[in-house]
Amino acid sequence: MDNLHSNNVSDVKVLAFDVFGTVVDWHGSVMREVESLNLGVDADRFALAWRAGYMPAIRRVLSGELDWTLIDDLHRMILDELLEQFDIAGLTEGERRYLNLAWHRLDPWPDSVAGLTRLKKRYTICTLSNGNLGLLTNMAKRSGLPWDCILSAEVFRKYKPDPATYLGVAQVFDLDPGEVMMVAAHQDDLAHARACGLKTAYIERPLEYGPSQHKDVAPHPDNTVHAGDLLELAAQLGC
Amino acid sequence: MDNLHSNNVSDVKVLAFDVFGTVVDWHGSVMREVESLNLGVDADRFALAWRAGYMPAIRRVLSGELDWTLIDDLHRMILDELLEQFDIAGLTEGERRYLNLAWHRLDPWPDSVAGLTRLKKRYTICTLSNGNLGLLTNMAKRSGLPWDCILSAEVFRKYKPDPATYLGVAQVFDLDPGEVMMVAAHQDDLAHARACGLKTAYIERPLEYGPSQHKDVAPHPDNTVHAGDLLELAAQLGC
Repeated sequence: MDNLHSNNVSDVKVLAFDVFGTVVDWHGSVMREVESLNLGVDADRFALAWRAGYMPAIRRVLSGELDWTLIDDLHRMILDELLEQFDIAGLTEGERRYLNLAWHRLDPWPDSVAGLTRLKKRYTICTLSNGNLGLLTNMAKRSGLPWDCILSAEVFRKYKPDPATYLGVAQVFDLDPGEVMMVAAHQDDLAHARACGLKTAYIERPLEYGPSQHKDVAPHPDNTVHAGDLLELAAQLGC
Repeated sequence: MDNLHSNNVSDVKVLAFDVFGTVVDWHGSVMREVESLNLGVDADRFALAWRAGYMPAIRRVLSGELDWTLIDDLHRMILDELLEQFDIAGLTEGERRYLNLAWHRLDPWPDSVAGLTRLKKRYTICTLSNGNLGLLTNMAKRSGLPWDCILSAEVFRKYKPDPATYLGVAQVFDLDPGEVMMVAAHQDDLAHARACGLKTAYIERPLEYGPSQHKDVAPHPDNTVHAGDLLELAAQLGC
């Protein structure tokens, strides 16, 4: 079993990272941004509600109900609804635009930059996020996330979990799917990647939804690797 | 005039770089690769012929005669023809594949990494190359080119000089075209970028085609900046 496992991992050449929740702390960062605007709302609830609008919006694009729409624009649609629901009036258009770009200013988890830097020595490290290219680039530049390449649903014009995204990473690097490992803090993302033949690494991130929410971070036996954070992933991959 | 010039440049937020010839020395690098295989051919002529096949191949895609085809595959089509023309027999499929990937192993000009590192402090620096994403990523990783983001014709599924590529950079970063500066060693690339409203920086690279070829590196008055190399560009942009 150990041999098989090690043979599996030794095929991997590219690590493709989910970003929101896996590499950066969207909950704490959006809370920080909301609090800084003194909107008089519960920032924890607001951050959770904003993120809760995300998958339904993605599904509207996946189903074809919405034409192809970038995450920046989906985030803005959700934000405009939330500002009504939370009874927040009086934000100027400029303030709404600024707040919407909170998702460009998400802070990495404390281990992310160091972990990626170690992993980058042995592997090609790229994003595979539903976030748009501009968002991911601004985020990386602000925090020093050392990506070799920023890949996004925007490149494939399909959102995860469409197989075109997972298989797209392999095609970009002219690799077999089994030579790519998807790294994510979400079992459903990894299950879809695995169905396409990618290897998978689960990262726990128990505080992804903030301290008020319980997140199940139990290992799933089908993942190639299970790690507490990106430094642990680096250690397990011998980096 | 100085004021106008400086105002122009102060709008720029993103520098988009042509890569082959501008950032890396394709001629010297392909020569090195050809020589290392001891093929018994004039490596200077072989490198020039391989590159000379490039624009005709791109034009076949631009005209629709060829479906969308990545540069790796165009390079291979040209290579297979050249091996016949140069009477090189006996290369195995593995050797052909390896030689074709010479374009992933192009060396930067001596000033490129240092120049980009300085420019990156003030600007978002990205590629805008007809090279495919995998090629550009492998090249950057091998040489330490510190791109914030790798953009390619592959993202837009149009080759330069299609306006969708130049305008695509502005769209990715949600900027006006005038907030993007195209940096290239080729006046035609810059002319097309300028027609889309981008600012332009010409980099001389007089040895792009090797010492046997003369390259006209005279300044063109329509460019925003004219620089000998990327360190000079950094100095002119105050980095």
